[in-house]
Amino acid sequence: MAKRIRLEKRIVSENDRLARQLAGRFRAAGVLAVNLMSSPGAGKTSLLEETSRRLGGELRLAAIEGDLATERDAERLRRAGMAARQINTGRGCHLNAAQVAEALDAFDGPGNPLDLDALDVLFIENVGNLVCPAQFDPGERRRVVVASTPEGDDKPLKYPVVFHTADCVVLNKTDLLEATLFSCEAFRQHVRGLAPKARILELSCRTGEGLEAWLDWLRAERAAAKKD
Amino acid sequence: MAKRIRLEKRIVSENDRLARQLAGRFRAAGVLAVNLMSSPGAGKTSLLEETSRRLGGELRLAAIEGDLATERDAERLRRAGMAARQINTGRGCHLNAAQVAEALDAFDGPGNPLDLDALDVLFIENVGNLVCPAQFDPGERRRVVVASTPEGDDKPLKYPVVFHTADCVVLNKTDLLEATLFSCEAFRQHVRGLAPKARILELSCRTGEGLEAWLDWLRAERAAAKKD
Repeated sequence: MAKRIRLEKRIVSENDRLARQLAGRFRAAGVLAVNLMSSPGAGKTSLLEETSRRLGGELRLAAIEGDLATERDAERLRRAGMAARQINTGRGCHLNAAQVAEALDAFDGPGNPLDLDALDVLFIENVGNLVCPAQFDPGERRRVVVASTPEGDDKPLKYPVVFHTADCVVLNKTDLLEATLFSCEAFRQHVRGLAPKARILELSCRTGEGLEAWLDWLRAERAAAKKD
Repeated sequence: MAKRIRLEKRIVSENDRLARQLAGRFRAAGVLAVNLMSSPGAGKTSLLEETSRRLGGELRLAAIEGDLATERDAERLRRAGMAARQINTGRGCHLNAAQVAEALDAFDGPGNPLDLDALDVLFIENVGNLVCPAQFDPGERRRVVVASTPEGDDKPLKYPVVFHTADCVVLNKTDLLEATLFSCEAFRQHVRGLAPKARILELSCRTGEGLEAWLDWLRAERAAAKKD
């Protein structure tokens, strides 16, 4: 068991070294890198589709999509106008910095890297999983956790690690609030207990309600990343 | 990397050895052990609450509850009349056979094991995660994957490993069908492609619709486990 823990620590520290390199590349290019994490089906891809439609004319956006299988999410984003590269992890439960570096270097196929100098925001959409992704930094500047009303308002308490590290918590599917037993007040209180400084945004990708505050958060974070 | 893979294989095979021991204990006692897996918030605990209320007078039920943190789910089940033992995994993304064995041996506190000879069905409610739990057998006889309509009908395609190993797929929250864009036909087709023999049950824990078929499945599986 001690051997297992030592190896796990080495894997995490190898990842951290690569993540720092990536973060340095993003900083040098003035790119805001956002790591999106959530349960399966909370609406990460829907949020990026709406972001592309509403912000695509103003900022230059691209996405790296993590899934065990299929190219579906990258295809959805391309249809919504965002450049996207799919990573298939097989049995892998999270994205790591090495996978993100590889995807950047072959964004449009082998030998065709993503031009970071021509980019404003890079979204790293992680594998849908509220546990493991929190433990592997893929080089991001900001961490966003997307939750959704049908999952229940107690999820921060039951998955504290990922919420604890969030810079922004997006509560999606507010259009389903009346059909569920979700309490926004309880949810906000649980998040505040774990991440007092995190921004909490309530929205519905379906109706568009609340999306403007999300776009404003991205604009402000992008401006700050540009200055650094 | 080769070293990491060798170690992972050893961990899985150690788990398999313990899982076989557990399965032998369940078989000897005629207990049906059911491993419940799903995304966070799909409704595993709600399904067990309703199962307890409707089947608790007929079969002797108990549950082992896996969560990173809190005793909430075990408390919910006890309020619904089911004996339950909570396991907190900290940062752990799945339950393993060693944790289940430990929980059985101290079900009602240290030195107070669960009496398997006085039990019909043991539910092992895994950590909410559609990736990692599929790779660790906790000694179950049957695997149940709980999906829910707000997650979207494409989840089997994107998380194939867990659906591939399912004996039964429960689609919960059918009461939200009209409020979502979920296609039951597409979902069933995706599941059939991965697990042709799996039973697919559509139900709503909220309204009670479809629950009788789930109880019948449990009754039949319990009778089969008793005979073996």
